[in-house]
Amino acid sequence: MHRTKVRIVEDALDANNTIAQANRADFARAGVAVVNFMSAPGAGKTSLLERVVGDLPGVRVGVLEGDVQGSMDADRLAGLHVPVTQLNTDPSFGGECHLDANMVRSALGALPLDEIDLLVIENVGNLVCPAEFRVGEDVRVMVSSVTEGEDKPLKYPLMFRTCDLVLVNKIDLLPHLDFDLEKFLHHIDQVNPRAPRMLLSARTGEGIEQWREWLTGVAAGVREGAPA
Amino acid sequence: MHRTKVRIVEDALDANNTIAQANRADFARAGVAVVNFMSAPGAGKTSLLERVVGDLPGVRVGVLEGDVQGSMDADRLAGLHVPVTQLNTDPSFGGECHLDANMVRSALGALPLDEIDLLVIENVGNLVCPAEFRVGEDVRVMVSSVTEGEDKPLKYPLMFRTCDLVLVNKIDLLPHLDFDLEKFLHHIDQVNPRAPRMLLSARTGEGIEQWREWLTGVAAGVREGAPA
Repeated sequence: MHRTKVRIVEDALDANNTIAQANRADFARAGVAVVNFMSAPGAGKTSLLERVVGDLPGVRVGVLEGDVQGSMDADRLAGLHVPVTQLNTDPSFGGECHLDANMVRSALGALPLDEIDLLVIENVGNLVCPAEFRVGEDVRVMVSSVTEGEDKPLKYPLMFRTCDLVLVNKIDLLPHLDFDLEKFLHHIDQVNPRAPRMLLSARTGEGIEQWREWLTGVAAGVREGAPA
Repeated sequence: MHRTKVRIVEDALDANNTIAQANRADFARAGVAVVNFMSAPGAGKTSLLERVVGDLPGVRVGVLEGDVQGSMDADRLAGLHVPVTQLNTDPSFGGECHLDANMVRSALGALPLDEIDLLVIENVGNLVCPAEFRVGEDVRVMVSSVTEGEDKPLKYPLMFRTCDLVLVNKIDLLPHLDFDLEKFLHHIDQVNPRAPRMLLSARTGEGIEQWREWLTGVAAGVREGAPA
């Protein structure tokens, strides 16, 4: 008698993980490293991409833009001569507050995977749900702007806990804020002590070089702290 | 033959609206005006409440704090001698990115409704889903910080469209930002031309007086732009 054991897929997140693994396998087959790029609204994701995507030595970059509506970020990046694909989460009222693996899968056919080495997926601006849904990425990068306050790692722990790099943006504003940088870094330590962090400013360019180098390393397969 | 027509409740949002209406009826019976207070993470909701909740002439304020985890904002407000109730959306992994009507309903018994005139519900920091779920409020107030960029009304239109007041916070930082205030206000006009807006800074206190007066007016039943 032939018997096969099948583990039942438990819930929506499990289904999402199944699709995320399929995405990741497709990306790997195409030789494309993938970054899931996340932050609160207005933390500076697009500005930090504008600084580097057109200028990564030896790395061909593509961007998948996730937004509730519109294509403002994609329009900003289009001038940099990198392929940009837009994904909108709003089929009707309100829209989804995050990308999930199936949305990214629906965009696979539109991505020029054979022409790029690195795909940056700019997620919807949100510190909660994007952290819950893997989309097929190799690494997760989050941006936390110093204007958002020191308490964010403790208030949105899953996001900080599951990322492989924290970009601390807008440090040019530090002299004008009541922001305790030491306290903020200590809060990151409380939820994710191993997370590398970089202090930078998309506006002034400070610290951008190390961000460029880190991305180049990811594309080269040197994936620092890549999740299993 | 007795026949009754019942309209079928269509979806989750419809169910949410039903509960929100029940909440609103309970608040109205208790004589409590309710503000649903929303923004992106770190825009300054709690700081703007710290500035006014202990000092509204003739108005007894209570606060319901919505967070994924922890009670950092509630702890900050507790020193102001107003009743603060904490609601966490995280029963396990990740947590909900917004409050819904049923979560607020579950907190009704913990709210001192007979001791307050105004309840401010500080929602989870997020510009997407909180806008989709009414919780029983009379008015919606959102905070948009000038550090978040001019594009936010176009990227998160439902939030801007459904609010009754936009607080434009952190204007003390304007000299240090590449932020085009006229463009931002024009973007608000594109999605919600009737929304009143106030320019202020929780840090310096600029503009706080009009925010205090507006809240006092809400509590007095003078609900500017109150939704139906």
